[in-house]
Amino acid sequence: MDTATRIETTLADAVLTAEAAGAPPRLSAALRHAVFPKGARIRPRLTLAVAMACGDDKPALASAAAASIELLHCASLVHDDMPCFDDAETRRGKPSVHRAFGVPLAVLAGDALIVLAFQTVARAAPCAPDRVPAVLIAVGDGVGVPFGIVAGQAWECEPRADMSDYHRQKTGALFAAACVAGAAASGHPEPEAWRLLGDRLGEAYQVADDLRDAVEDEATIGKPVGRDKALGRPSAVIELGLQGAVARLRTLSEAAVAAIPDCPGQGVLRAVMLAEAQRLVPRKLATAA
Amino acid sequence: MDTATRIETTLADAVLTAEAAGAPPRLSAALRHAVFPKGARIRPRLTLAVAMACGDDKPALASAAAASIELLHCASLVHDDMPCFDDAETRRGKPSVHRAFGVPLAVLAGDALIVLAFQTVARAAPCAPDRVPAVLIAVGDGVGVPFGIVAGQAWECEPRADMSDYHRQKTGALFAAACVAGAAASGHPEPEAWRLLGDRLGEAYQVADDLRDAVEDEATIGKPVGRDKALGRPSAVIELGLQGAVARLRTLSEAAVAAIPDCPGQGVLRAVMLAEAQRLVPRKLATAA
Repeated sequence: MDTATRIETTLADAVLTAEAAGAPPRLSAALRHAVFPKGARIRPRLTLAVAMACGDDKPALASAAAASIELLHCASLVHDDMPCFDDAETRRGKPSVHRAFGVPLAVLAGDALIVLAFQTVARAAPCAPDRVPAVLIAVGDGVGVPFGIVAGQAWECEPRADMSDYHRQKTGALFAAACVAGAAASGHPEPEAWRLLGDRLGEAYQVADDLRDAVEDEATIGKPVGRDKALGRPSAVIELGLQGAVARLRTLSEAAVAAIPDCPGQGVLRAVMLAEAQRLVPRKLATAA
Repeated sequence: MDTATRIETTLADAVLTAEAAGAPPRLSAALRHAVFPKGARIRPRLTLAVAMACGDDKPALASAAAASIELLHCASLVHDDMPCFDDAETRRGKPSVHRAFGVPLAVLAGDALIVLAFQTVARAAPCAPDRVPAVLIAVGDGVGVPFGIVAGQAWECEPRADMSDYHRQKTGALFAAACVAGAAASGHPEPEAWRLLGDRLGEAYQVADDLRDAVEDEATIGKPVGRDKALGRPSAVIELGLQGAVARLRTLSEAAVAAIPDCPGQGVLRAVMLAEAQRLVPRKLATAA
């Protein structure tokens, strides 16, 4: 089964549990709306790439770890899009969850997705119970307190925020979790050694996101553009200029590849990571650079 | 260590992790506000009572399971109190989290508490890794989709709701999880056998909550009263009258005690449950009845 199919199948199985007879149907519909049709699935592809580089001897647990990372990413999109934060009307080219289902169901859908992420890993436990705690700790660190993406989002509610803390927690934490969880699911002896790769990829992705916000249109990326400038948010493009940001993205991508720990599939993973990094550059800039 | 101390110590350790240097301080403060000072801690006391009846041979895991149940209860209070649901100004005798910290931090504090619940169980794994998946599945079932408390709350967003589904999911699910998780943490061979006890206690608690809403004052219970009547919500008091509701509470409590499965501490647990049930009746009705 190819990587994309593994991810979509595992996500579909997870979301299907929400649709049991006797469950509230609008909540189930909101969950499905939040998870499908697919986004880029960058984070779960990263989890599986790392798991495969480490041997992927427990594929059901690795798939569950990948799905849990994506479910948490979807949860954060649902909550961050709400009127009290970004007030985003669209997401992945369709109405955001609160626009389609209302704010109360957006709150609950986000909550349910967070729980579903942990349920998904717990339900995969029979194939490798001894590895489950490390996977869960990696996933929890990436999303919760003190330094996960929820903490990152909370910096928007502080009177003073360190921008590097903000970005590292808001974006980088889940990339780091994606790597560490993939390594833990495949029984790598030192899953934490994979954190640096995730941190650097997270930084690279943040720069790529700033570039997309600056140069793409809404139809291409499925969400409103020009928001950083409009909302006065920090952005690598505003700080470094377009070409400076593209150069920074390349530097970070190379640093990420250099951070891949020793593992059986190190060479293949390097090639995959370089190809992924290439895809992060908006097309109109990739040809110009 | 007595039960109350076990619960407060485990919760304090969990919340302390949110206060690490580099974490957003207002989010940390909102978490602390949501969890302390203590509420009645009915659910985690139930988890520990069941764990002790089953031998309590892995107390660190049982304490973590109890804390996780209470953290999820606190998370649901934070989100359910928000303006898009109950718009409650007070909780446990002080401002609700969104009143004290604003809606964005209420969303994030609830999210972080859900994650912290699972982190707390995962971090206790070294003492009994083989039991962790069953504990996590019990906890996840109690809070998530399809039938946990998040699903219960979502019935408020449906055009038609079955009231027994609503109550069973909104209140009963976490009581059931409290029992099943306690049994799983102590290695009971059939944790699911404990679900019926939790279901019945959840129903009893719901009736007790309806009674408190009808006869107590805000200073006594720390939250607004008379809300069921004001909001047109279903209530055992409106349906059965005051004395009828008290009689129903006693019947449910006895049915709960009768549902306790075989275990080493069955006799003690029966006595504890009857004493707990007695505490559920508002004082002014207990003397009159």
